[in-house]
Amino acid sequence: TQQLLSSPAPRARPFRVCNWDRSLRKGIMAESLADLLGKIQSTLLLVGTVAVVLDEDGTTVETEEFFQTLEDGTVLMALGKGQTWASAKTPGYQL
Amino acid sequence: TQQLLSSPAPRARPFRVCNWDRSLRKGIMAESLADLLGKIQSTLLLVGTVAVVLDEDGTTVETEEFFQTLEDGTVLMALGKGQTWASAKTPGYQL
Repeated sequence: TQQLLSSPAPRARPFRVCNWDRSLRKGIMAESLADLLGKIQSTLLLVGTVAVVLDEDGTTVETEEFFQTLEDGTVLMALGKGQTWASAKTPGYQL
Repeated sequence: TQQLLSSPAPRARPFRVCNWDRSLRKGIMAESLADLLGKIQSTLLLVGTVAVVLDEDGTTVETEEFFQTLEDGTVLMALGKGQTWASAKTPGYQL
């Protein structure tokens, strides 16, 4: 598979990645979304990761394009199959 | 109908797009309103999207000119036929 990048080779950038219940949070360097997904599996032992979302509001990060717009240090949540994002700011509040 | 822009080619910008009940929220890159509407159909699987509104207050985004004034990262809601915007439920919600 080929990766189309018009810009220079991306540098690895720091992200903070937590799991679905925020019991784990680790600093991970990644230069692309694909790279991050691979490292999440080895670092958070989350096999078969299906989604990475912004911890802030649950926005799903699906494309490399959108991933590249994230600031260094962005807090992301890794979700495995069946896991869903819930807001951290309204504990006890359920929709 | 075609839209001609006299300014330089627009760059794709990041937006956060949710569906009518906010059960889905995805990061989508778009360089124009037309581009965004197309990507919403493929990303949110929302066929026949009729409107994009500001999640914040339900303001309908109908023109390319207004769309271009939105800041990167603006949260938008995609509405299909018969779907309407409603305020987020959390009282005192603030960004």
